[in-house]
Order: sequence, then C-alpha cells, then structure tokens
Amino acid sequence: MEDENESIQFELTDALLQQVEGYVASNDDKALQNLLKEFHYADIAEILDELNLEQAIYVIKLLDSETTSDILMELDEDNREKVLKNLTAKEIAEEVEELDTDDAADIIAELPEERQQEVINRIEDEDHKAEIKELLAYDEDTAGGLMAKELVKVYETWTVAGCLRRIRGQAKEVTRVHSIYVVNKEEKLIGRLSLKDLIVAKSEQKIADIYITSVDYVDVNEDVEEVARVMAKYDLEAIPVVDENKTLLGRITIDDIVDVLKEEADKDYQMAAGITGDVDSDDSILQLTRARLPWLFLGLLGGIGAFIIMEGFQEAFSKYAVLFFFTPLIAAMAGNVGVQSSAIIVQGLANDDVKGSVNSRLLKEMLLAALNGLILAIFLFLFVWLYNGEMDKALAISTSLVAVIIIAGLIGTFVPLFLDKRGIDPAIATGPFITTSNDILGILLYFWIAKMILGI
Amino acid sequence: MEDENESIQFELTDALLQQVEGYVASNDDKALQNLLKEFHYADIAEILDELNLEQAIYVIKLLDSETTSDILMELDEDNREKVLKNLTAKEIAEEVEELDTDDAADIIAELPEERQQEVINRIEDEDHKAEIKELLAYDEDTAGGLMAKELVKVYETWTVAGCLRRIRGQAKEVTRVHSIYVVNKEEKLIGRLSLKDLIVAKSEQKIADIYITSVDYVDVNEDVEEVARVMAKYDLEAIPVVDENKTLLGRITIDDIVDVLKEEADKDYQMAAGITGDVDSDDSILQLTRARLPWLFLGLLGGIGAFIIMEGFQEAFSKYAVLFFFTPLIAAMAGNVGVQSSAIIVQGLANDDVKGSVNSRLLKEMLLAALNGLILAIFLFLFVWLYNGEMDKALAISTSLVAVIIIAGLIGTFVPLFLDKRGIDPAIATGPFITTSNDILGILLYFWIAKMILGI
Repeated sequence: MEDENESIQFELTDALLQQVEGYVASNDDKALQNLLKEFHYADIAEILDELNLEQAIYVIKLLDSETTSDILMELDEDNREKVLKNLTAKEIAEEVEELDTDDAADIIAELPEERQQEVINRIEDEDHKAEIKELLAYDEDTAGGLMAKELVKVYETWTVAGCLRRIRGQAKEVTRVHSIYVVNKEEKLIGRLSLKDLIVAKSEQKIADIYITSVDYVDVNEDVEEVARVMAKYDLEAIPVVDENKTLLGRITIDDIVDVLKEEADKDYQMAAGITGDVDSDDSILQLTRARLPWLFLGLLGGIGAFIIMEGFQEAFSKYAVLFFFTPLIAAMAGNVGVQSSAIIVQGLANDDVKGSVNSRLLKEMLLAALNGLILAIFLFLFVWLYNGEMDKALAISTSLVAVIIIAGLIGTFVPLFLDKRGIDPAIATGPFITTSNDILGILLYFWIAKMILGI
Repeated sequence: MEDENESIQFELTDALLQQVEGYVASNDDKALQNLLKEFHYADIAEILDELNLEQAIYVIKLLDSETTSDILMELDEDNREKVLKNLTAKEIAEEVEELDTDDAADIIAELPEERQQEVINRIEDEDHKAEIKELLAYDEDTAGGLMAKELVKVYETWTVAGCLRRIRGQAKEVTRVHSIYVVNKEEKLIGRLSLKDLIVAKSEQKIADIYITSVDYVDVNEDVEEVARVMAKYDLEAIPVVDENKTLLGRITIDDIVDVLKEEADKDYQMAAGITGDVDSDDSILQLTRARLPWLFLGLLGGIGAFIIMEGFQEAFSKYAVLFFFTPLIAAMAGNVGVQSSAIIVQGLANDDVKGSVNSRLLKEMLLAALNGLILAIFLFLFVWLYNGEMDKALAISTSLVAVIIIAGLIGTFVPLFLDKRGIDPAIATGPFITTSNDILGILLYFWIAKMILGI
C-alpha cells in the first residue's frame, strides 16, 4: 500500500520542473493533468511559483477550479496578484465560488477596487455572495477579517438524533468540524458541543440538556494578534466570533492563527533587522531597496551625527588621539546592549509576560547593565593599560564604557515600554532605530566622561 | 446567560492577586476553591506564576490533580521546576496519571534523572506507564518526542456501526478527535477517516469501502521543525507518526506545533538580538547575564580589533584626521547592511523559499547593495564636500562606503547560506556575529580604499 499514500517529502526537483515546462511547451494537456493530479495543491502552488507567468496561467486554466482555487490561496502573494490580473472577472468568480468565505474574501480584497465589485457581481451562489460581502466589510486586522462564515450551528431545542441528521447537511460544507456551536432562538451563542459529545450522547436527548455552557468567544472587532494569543494560551482549535449582542457571526480556526503567528514573527524579525514591509528573498531589487534603504539612511544620518560629535571634541583631545580609536568599540557596545534590552522587552510584551512597574524594570536593567558593563570594563581597562601603558586613559575609557552600557540598557528598556503604553508597536524600537540613537548618545557620553576624568 | 460564559478577557489584576494571597494566608481553603473554580487552568497558572513558591505549592496541593496537572503544564518553566522539586514522587505520579502521554513524558523529562525512574515506578496505570516510557526514549527534537500515544484507530475490517460503537470508548480518552486513522491487521497505517465521514456514511458499510487512502504521515525520527513546516504548509490539524514499517505509533496535533513555531520564532529573534539560551524578561539578572554577556564580549573584541586597525593607519593619515571621524558611520553601515542581508536569507531558509544557486543569490545581493550604496554614497559625498570643502576626501569616503556596503551585503548573504549547507543553524549568523565581523572588515576596507584614492 506504500505507493498509495502521500509522502510528506515532496521535493521540487529541477527534473520535475523541466517536465512540467516541457508539457506546457508542447501543449500536452493530458500528460500535464496526469502528472499534476498526483500532487497536493500546496505542492502544485510551489511548482507554479517557479514557472513564468504564461506557464503558470496555462496550468491554472487547464486544471478544474476546485483544485486551482486552493492552489491560488497557496501561491506567493506577488505571483497570485499577477495571475489574478490575467484572469477575467468571471474566471475569478468561479475560483471564489469554490473557496470558503474567509479565503474568498481575502482573494477579493487583494484585487484593485474597481475589479472587486465586478467579481462579486459574477458570483452565482447568492448566500455565498452575501457572506463574502459581509466579511469584506471588516478590517483585515480584526477577528471579523479573519473569520469564516462556515460553521456548524445547532439550536438548543433540537434533539441529538435530529441534530445529527441536520449536521450531516451543514457539515458537508465545512471542511473540518471543530466545535458545534449552540445558539438560542435569537441566534445568540449560548454554548458548545463536540461531535464526540454528540456521538457519545443518547439519540433522544435534547441539546439543551447536554451542551456545555462554558464557551470561549471573541468579539468581531477584536485585534487578530489578541485572538492568536488567546487561542494559543487556551489551546483552542477554533473560536466563535460574536457581535456585541453575542449573535454568532463566524468562527476562526487554528490554521489561520498559525499563519498570523508566522507573519507576526516574520514582521518582528524583519523590523529588528532594519527591513520594513513584508519582503522576501525572491522579491525584486527595487522592492528590497524600498524595504532596506530607509533604515540604512537612518544609519547614515547617525554616522554623520557621530562625525560631528567627534569633530567637536577634536581640539580638546588633540593630545589624546588614542581615544578616537575606541569610538567604534563604544558605539558597537551601546548598540548591542540597546538591541538586547529592547528585544527582551519587545518579546516579553508580545508574549504578555512583562509584569511589574516601569520603574522596577528600569532598576533591574540598570543592575544587569552595570554588572555586564563592569565585567567588560575590567577586561578593557587591563587591555588598554597593558597595551598602552597609560592608566589614566585606560580608566577614562573603561569608566565611560560602564556608563554607556547602563544608559544604552535603560534606553533599550524604556523606549519599547513607552511606545507600548502609547499604543505604538514596540517592535519598531528594536534594530536600527535603537542602534543609531544609542550609537550617537554613546559616543557623546564617552567623550564627555573621558573629558571629565582626564580633566581637560 | 451572559454570566455563564467565559469571557476571554481574563486579566490578572492586583486585586485578584491580593485576594488569592489573602485566602492562602488565612488558610481559607473553601473560599480559595470557590474563587479558583471559576477560572480556566491557563489563567490559574498565570496567577500561580505571580505567587511565591510556598503560596503556589499551597494552591497546587489544595486543588484536585485533574486541574493541577493542566495548571502545571501551563506554568512558566522555571516555576514548574521549582514546584516539582517540592512535590513527592507519588504526588508527581498522580499529576502524570491525569495528563496525556505527550505532556506526561515532557514533565518527567524535566525532572532530574534520579527522580525520573522514581516517578515512573509510582504510575499505577500500566498502559499509561508503558506509553510514557516509550515516548521518553525519543529525542525531544523529533516527531517521536512531540507525539502523543492518544489517538483514535480503527481496523479496515470493521463496519461503520461497529466502528462508531468502539470509537465511543477510545474517544473518551482523546481530548480532541481530529482524524481517525485506519490500520490493517498488522497495525500499519493505510488511510484515514474523519468523524464527519463516519457520521455521513451508512451504518452497515465497511471501513475498507469508505476510508481515504491518501494520508500524510511523518517518520518518528523526523525533525520537529520539518514537521511544523509540513503541517503549516498542508494546513494539517494532526498528523500520524509511523516507524520505518509504517506501523502507527502516535499523532502530533497542531497545538503542539503552534508552541514549536513560537519557540522557534522566539529563539531566532533572540539570536538576532545577541541573546543565547531561552531567557525571558522575568529571569534573574544572573541568567540574563549568562545569555547576554558572551555576545557583548564578542562585540568588545571587535571594538578592540577596530582600535588596532585605526592605530595602524594613524601615521599614514596624520594629515587626514577627518577620516577617523567617519569610522563609526562606516562600521554602522557595514553592520546594518550585513544584518539586513543575513536576516532575509535566514528567514527565507526557515520558510524554505530560498531558490536558485548561491552564485545567483550573491549576484542579486551585489546589485542590490551597489544600488543602495550608490544612493547613500551620493548623499554622503555631497555632505562631506559641502561641509568640508575638500572634494578628494569626500570622494575617498563615499567610494569606500559603496565598497563596504557591497562587501557587507555579500558576507551577510554568503555566511548563512554556507552555514545552512553545512547543516549549522544559519540563525547564529545574524546579529552580533555578522555585525562584529562586518564592523572590523568595513573599517579595514575603508582605510585601505581611502589610502589608495588619496595616494598616501
């Protein structure tokens, strides 16, 4: 039976790609269909991502819309945009008919505004159309923007037997039954059931007697990141979405949350590395430049700031040229400490485990930075003293280092906490932003302290 | 009915914490039990994480083991370790009896080796004990280390009616039924079914006639990150785990994968920020120092390297002091570009979408860096020229900047690709490692090019 089972080890080889390209070039539709029907739609999407646009569209027009709608959802976003541009409104509507409401609304939302209405008008299933229109009205960063209308819902007045009978009808349209939601006659969410509960129950029992009243839910306007946090915390696989009257509107499943978490993590990681916008390594040089240049420009301004500071201290330190040679060290340490502190706070805020007051946080970071700074300063003092033989300079440099590290740690701790309190995403405080500001401040502090210690 | 439903908006207030502490202090067990029975175990864990150890243990000993076993799993790892230290082997065994095999094995694996056997011996349920022992034998980073033994399994020879009857028994022990796995009489995985399929089927049908032969599975020795990638890619909510003979051994569910993805993202983020080990903002100053100091020390060595380079060029550039004032700028730009390039590659590798040869990657990065470098260099040239009036120095500095940015970009691209090919986690190439090496190399290159251009 081995051959009949899908191995998860799909690997996109050059040979496979050439085979597909060959069939497309020779218009060998039959061979192409036979080849591709073996693959999961996510694998076909991976293949299409490697083809050129004409080839990809050829394949999409060849396969039936049941498969291609799923493939479309898995395509790289840029490629999907290009493919959709080359399909007619009618063709897109056909794809949309096959998709669950949440995916359907996502596809339509990606279209240019003038095409959206055109595609919606072409959807033949009136219920599907109405539900998609409802979903399009929600902000994409809210529970409403993430939820699907497909769910299994039962009324408290039904019996188990009647329920099972009717669920058969509803369940056919729902890819996966997680929970069955119980509503009263006003459509308000009052509880839940699992298929398991239903199978275990006696067929003449009433739903009202067996349903579980404790049910987690989210408001339709809740932020998706908060939804993700809650679902991960309570290990939920699906959560119902309600309005302010607790009317059941839709449900969010864990696979959508996995995508949200991945996107969130990617975004924070890129932000920390000084990259804005959701780019990946396959994007064009122009897209990547747009994402990277602004942060590099910030770094350039920081470097010019450092230049101006150093020039300002030039005369005072004309006899102490050696001090200038330590500015890269001071700047690097200020930057590194700032990034470390801010990363820990940003991550703590994301995982919701930053407890205690801002002051206690700052005190802790001060002690930590002082400890780290002291250890590093002793090492630096010994190096400069032994290498250079001048104890006063060694002392000035290493004392400044401690001060710079403490200040850098405090800034790295304070800025994200401050941004978070103001409702701004603290992740922007990591990376180039904190590095650049700490660089300049560190260098300024360094020369200022050295000047005091050396009595210039 | 509003009050009967759990709101997801649990918030740990000071008032609530004081109430719990008060009940503990006055040994008011009844009030404490009444208060806590309202809360989800994940919320109780959040409360216990804020109590001191004696208080936490008091609460754990008070509640029944069905609740406390779930609470234990949700506690902060450090706190769990401390709590477990204060429980007897018998008490731990009682908690373990209540847990699914995967969680049970995780708890036992966290214990010191000498206590592990002691706890296992105290487990009364012999099947549970045997299954836990089996799971403990797998590496924690493999599918075997993540899977649970609890699953719903049916034989191809059963009928739908017989199947439903027997599933009722199995399903009671399984928290959530995702897929029902179909095996032949040798216990080999041959297909799957959903509860929905079973409910929709006629009761006299044979499983052999209705099961779906296409089933994804993973080998018990597969790496967890690969399992996570596959489950996310194919939107799977559970995946069966098999050995080399395809014997069904267990299953992995999506909630475990959510945890793996979160941990992975947290680890990469910390690595990029120069933090090793899985620390969080609530860890002790000593733990945080251990995680942060090594990278700071690397930065210090880099700074000393920069000092030695600058000192080496001191004489050659005695008339060009202004050049020294641009070293922080050069170092910062080299670091920033290196972090950007490496982050894009590391993220691409993690998402498995770095396609094409290493050479084509390097060529693309070179063009990208050249474009960004040129734009920044023109700005810098104009600034230095207008500010300083000396065109030759302006030219030397800005030409070096372009070269430094290109080299930094190439290193940032090459190093993670190289590490990945060698089987080393490329994430260590981001952050302080790339910053420090690019800092030094950038400064060296800068003085060398400036020297050539100025003809010294």
